[in-house]
Amino acid sequence: MNIQIILRNACHHCLISFFPPTQVIKCKAAVIWEPKTPFSIVEIEVAPPKAHEVRIKILASGICRSDDHVLSGALKVTFPIILGHEAAGVVESVGEGVTSVKTGDKVIPTFVPQCGECSPCIHPRGNLCKLNDFGTFVGLLPDGTSRFSYKGELIHSFVSTSTFTEYTVVHESSVAKIDAAAPPEKVCLIGCGFSAGYGAAINSAKVEPGSTCAVFGLGGVGLSAVMGCKAAGASRIIGVDINKDKFPKAKEVGATECVNPLDFEKPINEVLHDMTEGDGVDYSFEVVGHTDTMIAALTSCNMNYGTSVMVGAPATGSEITLPPGLIITGRVWKGTVFGGWKSRDSIPRLVSDFMQKKFTLDPLITHTMPFDKINEGFELLQAGKSVRLVVL
Amino acid sequence: MNIQIILRNACHHCLISFFPPTQVIKCKAAVIWEPKTPFSIVEIEVAPPKAHEVRIKILASGICRSDDHVLSGALKVTFPIILGHEAAGVVESVGEGVTSVKTGDKVIPTFVPQCGECSPCIHPRGNLCKLNDFGTFVGLLPDGTSRFSYKGELIHSFVSTSTFTEYTVVHESSVAKIDAAAPPEKVCLIGCGFSAGYGAAINSAKVEPGSTCAVFGLGGVGLSAVMGCKAAGASRIIGVDINKDKFPKAKEVGATECVNPLDFEKPINEVLHDMTEGDGVDYSFEVVGHTDTMIAALTSCNMNYGTSVMVGAPATGSEITLPPGLIITGRVWKGTVFGGWKSRDSIPRLVSDFMQKKFTLDPLITHTMPFDKINEGFELLQAGKSVRLVVL
Repeated sequence: MNIQIILRNACHHCLISFFPPTQVIKCKAAVIWEPKTPFSIVEIEVAPPKAHEVRIKILASGICRSDDHVLSGALKVTFPIILGHEAAGVVESVGEGVTSVKTGDKVIPTFVPQCGECSPCIHPRGNLCKLNDFGTFVGLLPDGTSRFSYKGELIHSFVSTSTFTEYTVVHESSVAKIDAAAPPEKVCLIGCGFSAGYGAAINSAKVEPGSTCAVFGLGGVGLSAVMGCKAAGASRIIGVDINKDKFPKAKEVGATECVNPLDFEKPINEVLHDMTEGDGVDYSFEVVGHTDTMIAALTSCNMNYGTSVMVGAPATGSEITLPPGLIITGRVWKGTVFGGWKSRDSIPRLVSDFMQKKFTLDPLITHTMPFDKINEGFELLQAGKSVRLVVL
Repeated sequence: MNIQIILRNACHHCLISFFPPTQVIKCKAAVIWEPKTPFSIVEIEVAPPKAHEVRIKILASGICRSDDHVLSGALKVTFPIILGHEAAGVVESVGEGVTSVKTGDKVIPTFVPQCGECSPCIHPRGNLCKLNDFGTFVGLLPDGTSRFSYKGELIHSFVSTSTFTEYTVVHESSVAKIDAAAPPEKVCLIGCGFSAGYGAAINSAKVEPGSTCAVFGLGGVGLSAVMGCKAAGASRIIGVDINKDKFPKAKEVGATECVNPLDFEKPINEVLHDMTEGDGVDYSFEVVGHTDTMIAALTSCNMNYGTSVMVGAPATGSEITLPPGLIITGRVWKGTVFGGWKSRDSIPRLVSDFMQKKFTLDPLITHTMPFDKINEGFELLQAGKSVRLVVL
């Protein structure tokens, strides 16, 4: 049996056929040519994976607010670009030297790589691998080139992933093998939104049993933060959103109460202090990405022992002004990328936990639609009518 | 023997003589009548302690930068006022209901009270008791009055203590009994500077063995932070100060290297990244109280797993502007008051640790002088010629 397997994969004299030459794939992709324009569904060319790269057939991809931040111009990237970073798929082919996945593996591409060798990968509390393109948005693979082109023109990738396409190519450090039985249209959310919110509560804040939490912004990531607070044993979880249509779902996943800042004349941080006998909450989460809600979340937590976690990606070039007195009294203000998870270590475990029903993703997924309808999907997101929308 | 003791302290019929009526004390105090003026040494009247209050004969008092911030106008308080908050003394008399100290006890007054009942006192990570006057600077005892007067005019107290006087009155929650054998001219520093810096490293940052730390500002608190980093097992401790005369002392207490921002053309945060192979430090401490060094300290620590602790009290009304991208990548920015110690629980233990030579205070104390020379003491501090100066 062993010999048969070897014969199937390798020639007798060399290793070349372990990495059989793959071909350029022509496929559909949703390309953005410049900010504030809709996606164009066009046929692009996806070059074969080079050494240490993996070509993936995308099966399902969630639409995340960060993608929308590129459309709106809030996040500055290089155009043309293929967005999408929250997906599940199957490995189509691998480049030379790839050992962690093989053709046919079910995988989740990850916008936070894990090379395993750089200082954030080695540090116990680190997870922002130096191969990441989060914040820099160079839009190229680690070798400085792209595998995407349209009529000869280079198309950029988004945060090491690019999943609004039938096929993508990522570096091996940006892909995690998952349970072959996992449903792609659900576990794709583990590639970003669910993990970011859930991990913000579990890993970054380390919410404690009996604590009081407030989650600002009740989209997919915010709901996942609510789920994380509940899993950690918080006794009060206050959802905060200016769209009250989001409250029933928030309560379904664990919020004990919800407040709409527009219902009050006083600032929401004062409302939250009133709701907590003047103490403020133990943990607050900002899952919007706006500087005003960042300050509101910070000031809502206890001045001495409260922790506020910034989860929402701020707009490129944004600035925030605050009195340092908000910090000196003992508050903790911290950021989190991908919920503090080391991506390739954690994604397979999170998928496994999902398969064992340790948490559910169903409440987060409000819509699924074919890939061709991606512009309609973003319209639903922008109108606040979807939580997480998955394109197939 | 027991009967004799009872007879000495109580009458046969009532409890009144447990709290014998004490008299107004006339004594010398250093009063500030308005900002940017020197101390006047005048004879004030110190009223007897009311219920739950303690009158203390001050034996030694350190001069802290926060006192100087009042003189310079950076901290806004109500005048006239008696400054000083880092002292050791002996209980002269106690008011009704005081049970934790008695006449003759050696004590340290504490600018962070510990009532033991409010939410920060109860919370495991809290220490900023709600009876504190830190930040609010009302300048009165919890009952809203003062025991200090000068020719009938009310004199305010400073952060629940006021120690630049021969006698002070504090609330029982603001005084900790210490080892009777402790030398007041040394352990007075445990009342503020030493504990603030040492605790910032030990409690607030929780510096880990083998980590790299940077301490911005090498005054008494900064040196104590260096000592805390060393005690926690940091392998590199980088002292940062624009006064290179402070470097030998910093190295004496544990700094492995020192840098002067004025020696570089590039910003000091870039210098620290260069010194750490681009990673930045694991832990940084801002012990100056300036917004520019707060940002420098924050940006000096690793963008993903670094922690920056704000120790220096910022000027009243100061504001700081930063891109939230500094936080979102995973940095932790936190404040600390009195090094995160619960004051009355911790001060006796810290004094005990000092008596057992677990740490030394000698390197911090560069000058001692009689109380009358307090203005000269502040001149030395302002000229950067003293680390900690103790008035007796």
